[in-house]
Amino acid sequence: MPLNKSWVTSANDAHHPFPLNNLPYGVFSDGDAPPRCGVAIGDMILDLQAAETAGIIQLGSERLFEMPFWNEFMEEGPAVWAALRERLTALLQVGARDQKRIEPFLVHTKDAELHMPFMVSEFTDYYAGRHHATNVGSMFRGPENALPPNWLHIPIGYNGRASSVVVSGTDVRRPWGQIKGAEDDTPRWAPCSRFDIELEMGAIVGTPSDGPITVQEADDHIFGYVLLNDWSARDIQAWEYHPLGPFQSKATATSISPWIVTKAALEPFRCNTPAREVELLEHLWDCGPMLYDIDLSVSLRPEGGTDEILARTNYREMYYSAAQQLAHHTTSGCPMNPGDLLGSGTISGPDKTQRGSLLELSWGGQDPITLASGETRSFLEDGDTLTLRGEARGDGYTIGFGECTGTVTPALDDPYAR
Amino acid sequence: MPLNKSWVTSANDAHHPFPLNNLPYGVFSDGDAPPRCGVAIGDMILDLQAAETAGIIQLGSERLFEMPFWNEFMEEGPAVWAALRERLTALLQVGARDQKRIEPFLVHTKDAELHMPFMVSEFTDYYAGRHHATNVGSMFRGPENALPPNWLHIPIGYNGRASSVVVSGTDVRRPWGQIKGAEDDTPRWAPCSRFDIELEMGAIVGTPSDGPITVQEADDHIFGYVLLNDWSARDIQAWEYHPLGPFQSKATATSISPWIVTKAALEPFRCNTPAREVELLEHLWDCGPMLYDIDLSVSLRPEGGTDEILARTNYREMYYSAAQQLAHHTTSGCPMNPGDLLGSGTISGPDKTQRGSLLELSWGGQDPITLASGETRSFLEDGDTLTLRGEARGDGYTIGFGECTGTVTPALDDPYAR
Repeated sequence: MPLNKSWVTSANDAHHPFPLNNLPYGVFSDGDAPPRCGVAIGDMILDLQAAETAGIIQLGSERLFEMPFWNEFMEEGPAVWAALRERLTALLQVGARDQKRIEPFLVHTKDAELHMPFMVSEFTDYYAGRHHATNVGSMFRGPENALPPNWLHIPIGYNGRASSVVVSGTDVRRPWGQIKGAEDDTPRWAPCSRFDIELEMGAIVGTPSDGPITVQEADDHIFGYVLLNDWSARDIQAWEYHPLGPFQSKATATSISPWIVTKAALEPFRCNTPAREVELLEHLWDCGPMLYDIDLSVSLRPEGGTDEILARTNYREMYYSAAQQLAHHTTSGCPMNPGDLLGSGTISGPDKTQRGSLLELSWGGQDPITLASGETRSFLEDGDTLTLRGEARGDGYTIGFGECTGTVTPALDDPYAR
Repeated sequence: MPLNKSWVTSANDAHHPFPLNNLPYGVFSDGDAPPRCGVAIGDMILDLQAAETAGIIQLGSERLFEMPFWNEFMEEGPAVWAALRERLTALLQVGARDQKRIEPFLVHTKDAELHMPFMVSEFTDYYAGRHHATNVGSMFRGPENALPPNWLHIPIGYNGRASSVVVSGTDVRRPWGQIKGAEDDTPRWAPCSRFDIELEMGAIVGTPSDGPITVQEADDHIFGYVLLNDWSARDIQAWEYHPLGPFQSKATATSISPWIVTKAALEPFRCNTPAREVELLEHLWDCGPMLYDIDLSVSLRPEGGTDEILARTNYREMYYSAAQQLAHHTTSGCPMNPGDLLGSGTISGPDKTQRGSLLELSWGGQDPITLASGETRSFLEDGDTLTLRGEARGDGYTIGFGECTGTVTPALDDPYAR
């Protein structure tokens, strides 16, 4: 599929993240106006609430853009999702009959503030990147025992905290926690000193389910994707996680990019999961290409410094697709709801320069990385700004995600000092 | 505090679970009327939506009982919680001036269906009963290593699935899952054959927080308590839980009792946590009695059989209070919201007859229990109805919770058979 040209001419640049082929969904505000749903097209945002109010966009009898989040729309399901995309494409393409009617509802992105695009119902984070799991396992259990015994059989994951998911641009405060390092006789209460990132993709559940669904059905339930940074307190995690898994170490914040890139926009970039070392049980069988060829990167900008790429990887490095993760999530009968967010797990490639966490990049702090400024990093320092970027490259166009960024602010003074 | 007498005379029986001293909050419906908030008094339920509409109950300018759940009321905070309790006590006590005005809004409990009393925002389940943790740890790691190293230092827990929390009376379907027993070379897809209960209390967060709070503040944030049965698929759990914790094994269902017993009703029953084997770090220090003396039991009724008590225990057997669990939950900065539900963890006493799970009662299936009928149980059979009960005994009155019950229905036919 080639570039689909828009009368919003900024959208027609081959490197612009938001061409007409993309149409990502977000929530924005400008000036004193309250947050509302919008779609990005080039350097502009189309105000969908205003367009719906004006009667230019009408999908059935109900109003779908009254609320400042996409959950109600998601719940409508694939036919309505397709209808909106079709209508938006018709309104925004070159030669659109309604160009004059829709122009007043365009807002410059530079004048807009972006908000959480949806209400996160519940958040689940997986551990489904093989290189990441192998790296982390090698550090902690040696290369022979790197992968847990269940890893090649199920996409293992844990429930995270929906309340801690924030939109790109939100500062992230270094947490305190209970920590017991190898050198400590007893645990101590201290600010995290091994604060880390995790480069992930997030899949958003669009339609509900109330019992086991197949991988194909799961793919049909997914509405779209965002970039996701699961900030992680490694020292807190090491002490707390056995035997019930990560808890407070993952509850400070998880940042997501502000634009939901729909499954429809990503369709040309579908690719297969890697060859299976052991055959999966039937309920997890692949039933088509359900990963996507999306180039990803994470960069770091020290306070007052310049942004520098730490690692580049690709979403196709996952061992399990989001559809497989969602299908697995329903096996117990667990009800899934619109707005459920599934983190892929950290996405690392096979190479040292492709690792999606500082834990891996600095090999647990043993091998700090050196920045262009000469500064070194084992884990994050206060003032560091981390940015995830992602794009799929089509024939003369780009499907971008927008940045997922956050700055580490210093820990509070001890909140329990008396 | 003695029995506070009501003109609803059924409430004045010393053994009735819902005297005027209790006033538990629920959501009910009768006939064709939709669900609405109510308070139990003896054998009756006072319709709070109707009482508010009639102007008999007014707490500030906003309507608090328009929606069929207690979340909006909870969010109002302790002063409004106290005001409603005071008003209800005045309306329902012997000699109440407004008896005639309120009588039309009473509904017989036997005519009412009970619903989820609140929308569960997020659900966290702890592992904070020492006897339970010791029993389970002894089975899996031997008595010397029974408690994980972090256990005496933090109330360890994991995030569960809010979407799977159901009200008492909801059937619970035996799940399928991926299982790899000691006898299996490779994992297999099968119905759970070690389906279990967990006798717990649930604490409900009433007011929000957005950063670390103290144990005392946490206690102030808690709105009330319910009985909680965290249905658990032990065979699925054993295969999936390492290293990220329980996931699908705990996502089939968690049942709660239909009435929220408020902190105010439980005030006379406060008691201390047990002596500490090692001193806690300051952020978890006890700051008063924050457990409660509540007798608990779990009983089993086989299909067509009679209800039989399996175990009796008490909430004071917990090592950590709900306030300590909530304070710990906030240490990372994790935002907590009205309607967050915190499961205590399985509550077992020191004695064999005081164990709150079949895993413990049958010692992992090695020592099946024998029912009065002669049937044996290692784990749950289809058709078994499990019931939790709880009561605190005061001076001539009882604070009851209502039953938390659920029946195991057979597994579906293989949902993935083609």
